[in-house]
Amino acid sequence: MTALHSYVGGRWQTPTGEGIPLHDAATGEEIARVSTAGIDLAAALEYGRRVGGPALRELTFHQRAALLKALASHLREHREELYALSARTGATLGDSRFDVDGGIGVLFAYSSRGRRELPNDTVYVDGPVEPLGKGGTFVGQHVCTPLRGVAIQINAFNFPVWGPLEKLAPAFLAGMPSLIKPAEQTAYLTERLVRLIVDSGLLPEGTVQLVCGPPGDLLDYVTGQDLVAFTGSAATARKLRSHPVIVREAVRFTAEADSLNCSILGPDARPGTPEFDLYVKQLVAEMTVKAGQKCTAIRRALVPAELMDDVAAAVRDRLAKVTVGDPAREDVRMGALASLDQREEVRRAVKALRGAATLIFGDPDHVELVGADADRGAFVSPMLLRCDDPDRTEPHEVEAFGPVSTLMPFTSTEQAIELAARGRGSLAGSVVTADTEFAREVVLGLAPWHGRLLVLDRDDAKESTGHGSPLPNLVHGGPGRAGGGEEMGGLRGVLHHMQRTAVQADPKTLSAVTGRWVAGAPRRTEGVHPFRKSLAELRVGDAVTAGPRTVTLEDIDHFAEFTGDTFYAHTDEEAAKANPLFGGIVAHGYLVVSLAAGLFVAPEPGPVLANYGLENLRFLTPVKPGDELTVTLTAKQITPRANADYGEVRWDADVTNQTGESVAKYDVLTLVAKEQTS
Amino acid sequence: MTALHSYVGGRWQTPTGEGIPLHDAATGEEIARVSTAGIDLAAALEYGRRVGGPALRELTFHQRAALLKALASHLREHREELYALSARTGATLGDSRFDVDGGIGVLFAYSSRGRRELPNDTVYVDGPVEPLGKGGTFVGQHVCTPLRGVAIQINAFNFPVWGPLEKLAPAFLAGMPSLIKPAEQTAYLTERLVRLIVDSGLLPEGTVQLVCGPPGDLLDYVTGQDLVAFTGSAATARKLRSHPVIVREAVRFTAEADSLNCSILGPDARPGTPEFDLYVKQLVAEMTVKAGQKCTAIRRALVPAELMDDVAAAVRDRLAKVTVGDPAREDVRMGALASLDQREEVRRAVKALRGAATLIFGDPDHVELVGADADRGAFVSPMLLRCDDPDRTEPHEVEAFGPVSTLMPFTSTEQAIELAARGRGSLAGSVVTADTEFAREVVLGLAPWHGRLLVLDRDDAKESTGHGSPLPNLVHGGPGRAGGGEEMGGLRGVLHHMQRTAVQADPKTLSAVTGRWVAGAPRRTEGVHPFRKSLAELRVGDAVTAGPRTVTLEDIDHFAEFTGDTFYAHTDEEAAKANPLFGGIVAHGYLVVSLAAGLFVAPEPGPVLANYGLENLRFLTPVKPGDELTVTLTAKQITPRANADYGEVRWDADVTNQTGESVAKYDVLTLVAKEQTS
Repeated sequence: MTALHSYVGGRWQTPTGEGIPLHDAATGEEIARVSTAGIDLAAALEYGRRVGGPALRELTFHQRAALLKALASHLREHREELYALSARTGATLGDSRFDVDGGIGVLFAYSSRGRRELPNDTVYVDGPVEPLGKGGTFVGQHVCTPLRGVAIQINAFNFPVWGPLEKLAPAFLAGMPSLIKPAEQTAYLTERLVRLIVDSGLLPEGTVQLVCGPPGDLLDYVTGQDLVAFTGSAATARKLRSHPVIVREAVRFTAEADSLNCSILGPDARPGTPEFDLYVKQLVAEMTVKAGQKCTAIRRALVPAELMDDVAAAVRDRLAKVTVGDPAREDVRMGALASLDQREEVRRAVKALRGAATLIFGDPDHVELVGADADRGAFVSPMLLRCDDPDRTEPHEVEAFGPVSTLMPFTSTEQAIELAARGRGSLAGSVVTADTEFAREVVLGLAPWHGRLLVLDRDDAKESTGHGSPLPNLVHGGPGRAGGGEEMGGLRGVLHHMQRTAVQADPKTLSAVTGRWVAGAPRRTEGVHPFRKSLAELRVGDAVTAGPRTVTLEDIDHFAEFTGDTFYAHTDEEAAKANPLFGGIVAHGYLVVSLAAGLFVAPEPGPVLANYGLENLRFLTPVKPGDELTVTLTAKQITPRANADYGEVRWDADVTNQTGESVAKYDVLTLVAKEQTS
Repeated sequence: MTALHSYVGGRWQTPTGEGIPLHDAATGEEIARVSTAGIDLAAALEYGRRVGGPALRELTFHQRAALLKALASHLREHREELYALSARTGATLGDSRFDVDGGIGVLFAYSSRGRRELPNDTVYVDGPVEPLGKGGTFVGQHVCTPLRGVAIQINAFNFPVWGPLEKLAPAFLAGMPSLIKPAEQTAYLTERLVRLIVDSGLLPEGTVQLVCGPPGDLLDYVTGQDLVAFTGSAATARKLRSHPVIVREAVRFTAEADSLNCSILGPDARPGTPEFDLYVKQLVAEMTVKAGQKCTAIRRALVPAELMDDVAAAVRDRLAKVTVGDPAREDVRMGALASLDQREEVRRAVKALRGAATLIFGDPDHVELVGADADRGAFVSPMLLRCDDPDRTEPHEVEAFGPVSTLMPFTSTEQAIELAARGRGSLAGSVVTADTEFAREVVLGLAPWHGRLLVLDRDDAKESTGHGSPLPNLVHGGPGRAGGGEEMGGLRGVLHHMQRTAVQADPKTLSAVTGRWVAGAPRRTEGVHPFRKSLAELRVGDAVTAGPRTVTLEDIDHFAEFTGDTFYAHTDEEAAKANPLFGGIVAHGYLVVSLAAGLFVAPEPGPVLANYGLENLRFLTPVKPGDELTVTLTAKQITPRANADYGEVRWDADVTNQTGESVAKYDVLTLVAKEQTS
């Protein structure tokens, strides 16, 4: 059998040497071998930096987002291929969908987020302009630029598709090339995934590389501009984190390690309530999906002491219905563990747990199988343990990475929180309760130890994605034992691949750096009205100043009557005088912005199609009858859309009174055509 | 001489044993000794967790902010004491102000930021609500809660006041107790600072502890809920980062290490330009302030090749005017290094640099002194080196942590960027140019290697705080060699002390967890109008629904005429039909929100004092003549101000049409009195 190829330096490379054999989880048949012998890993990193990085950084965020979407569609078309190979990892079709469709979903999610939340530009501006001096000549702002190295993504065996895609998407969007290093165990599936990616021809060369096999000396070549994102065991995380080159170069290192996640049942959720049933159902699902090989699975089931017997009975009943066997069969609910070694690990862990807990369902050495052979495949029965003394250390420290959970009692909310914290950091936790006060107390009590917390009840059960599912818009990763990392979480995961830099400059220079107009930077008010310019003609800094318009008491009276906004500060001089902020009648804020629009608008049809919103409106100085308003509107940010004949323009609006004081400031959001229509 | 006391476990403790002697940098006189012998460091951590953390977490962000302000004022009153002791570290009065006033400034800055940007609550909500299902019954949002451990702050010798305060302020605001571990060298000044803090009685017990002396086994007791923030040498950073317990527990570790920062002169900045003079002046300032002992100081001065001679001559001229000597004297511009050992280090580094560069100003072994004795004090001359071959490795790798810089030439913008990157990560860099295009290219080229970049020119020179000054509103820290850390940066530095947790729930439960109303959560519309309720009476979820009001064509016409907003989409049916988004006349967005206000307002005087702004306004569906508008206003977030008899209320506004479709959504910001006035 030949070893899996690696895709490095722009071509598929065959390793020298025999390689480690990989076996079908269900049949024991050899599928492939892996080796990195003869593969120049230093050259792979250099290739990513030299070829992939520059190619990616030439694209805007929107262009990268469009490629992610195209890739997601391409993979969706070929997912059947991935499902078929996935079955050989021991996964049922449901498990495979979780892995494959989940991964494709992350690509779609990042694509759409990139188009919505990132500029159509190569620099991300983070946070507002910070005034650094009273005179306004010295300001600061943060920009984020992609790290100039390679994102080295070391994945776990249990999600050979979702794992790499969940790391690739934010890296790619950020502008960083990826080097994917799958776990050996299931590398054949990731290899197929990367073949699909490479064959699609969609992504620029050098932005995705693949190393199948042991990492060898890969980490000896990392620099402070590279990044290592690891998912796997806590022991390996430790080894990598203290790698001398990672330490010396202060390489960004993030880890997701499997953790002893808990699920807490509320005291309100007695048998007969929907929450009781939801708890049982969710626990069994978490035990059996992917045969419990999920770093987010529930290992510790914490239930009110008085409900222990009920929960134990209900979970056992439900587990009894779980069919185990050939993962390719439709009537099989749970497939195999990823390998025989893995099964040995689980057996060892269950043995250790039994020192403190009683096995109340399942048998580590025996399982009834459907269409499979227990001697050849890595099958194991689901196992439920019960530990009536939750102060024992084993259930909080020993992790069986399989279909195994331990039931434990608590007698107070404080105790539940304390027991949960004994996991010393978890990726995910859940609380099943209809009592919002209990939910609040537990969530806030557990939060410092958790990356994600789910509250499950009758109201969200239907739409809930479940305890064990990380989502691209929420952070994934937890403190302490869970690795201390953070991935995804929408834009946050993108920014983890970028360097945040504070830029200090005068407004004109800052504006040149960020590509956005900054208050204090020059404006161009001469020439044609900026509303008459198409996106192609408009430049940041193009502005119009219009006014003055006097606001009379009659205007205010009339506006009050017309709109119905007869708030006393606009209509009753006596009462308005008593208001601590106004000291007399003031114009409506809505009147001020309406009049400002009347001043700055260019009425005839033109490139500006619509005002679709307003941001950060602040009324800074009361407008009194007789005040004269002037408005200056300045093009602040221009974002052409890739797939439309218009784009967004954000305008800075500054309304001043006769003394030059700002009375209102805000951003006006418009849609503007790319070209003049006539 | 007795050893400095440590403040741990709620009392000043005297170490056993002799301790390490500390000497006056200028006179060599012994000032104090330091030792941690006999101090139970595990107990100190436990005390912080058990006493300090809970006390701090009971306070809201605003209460913590108020304490920081009080502390800042208290320290400002006592700063003369600190200046006096600071002189003994070798610092001139100017240097001491940089350290002491700078530190106090950070407290003030965080206090005011806390009041402005954080809620008057104990939970920070990070980012918007994320819809997780189409039906709206399952949503997510991120909350940040303080880590439950201790922030261990290991500071450098060069900023014995600013260093601890810059780390204390964000930790305190986040809700995490601090354990301050100053560098031994200048621990006597930090000890005085902490005495002032403790004696003020302002901060809750256990929130600030001090350990003077070697760290001993301190790090053996850290957990994943603690945090280690280090400032100092790259070598020590490495040692700490790979500490087995930090690695095992995935302890958050952040490092600021001194780096080989560069300053780049623009080719436009020829002799005679303001930028040329600014460059020279800044370089000399950075070399001599704190005798060059700043981790942000300029070590590499990169100038256009053709300007090398001019810059060299101008810098030498200016350096020649720098008086060195007794830091307490007013006519002295540069004091001593922190210790004789430090001087030996600098001499060693200069020797290494001279392998590649020529010393063109100063002498490592001789300096003319004013009122001081070169044999007893750690004085050294400012030294300028010149290296005409910028490809030599020494200037990019050897750091002399004293008044030492190396001039190097570049011949293109690309080369300047490349040379800067050879520092392998810096805290700060600067570009001195009036050419905004050059500035943009260099800033974006350098950004991945820098935590902060200053563009200095004639426009911002007057207000510029300079290359070497970290500011509380900007991030401090850089990648790679600079330690890979990030501190301050406004709220970002606070969040580094908190765990971000994704919470998934139904809207009602999420609302209970965050204390904010979330779309989909129940509203209370019965009873008294919410504008009639004081802050004390109002509850999140209190709401009013009002309407409908029909928008007629006459209304639109009239509004156009009245405000002057005669944009064709509101006035010209023919033209409006051609608009790709509207297909006919639509009402002004400003009219819609004005009418909505007319519907939801409660006109009579009452607790609502003013509408001070609007956020996130989006026009979602065009409003056509004849449409009927209804608005629902719901109290979303309530923020009482600590020092006023009113607070802020954020309302969710949802304007719908006759089919129930939302036409506009936004947040209305109001000021509301705490109590009913009559």
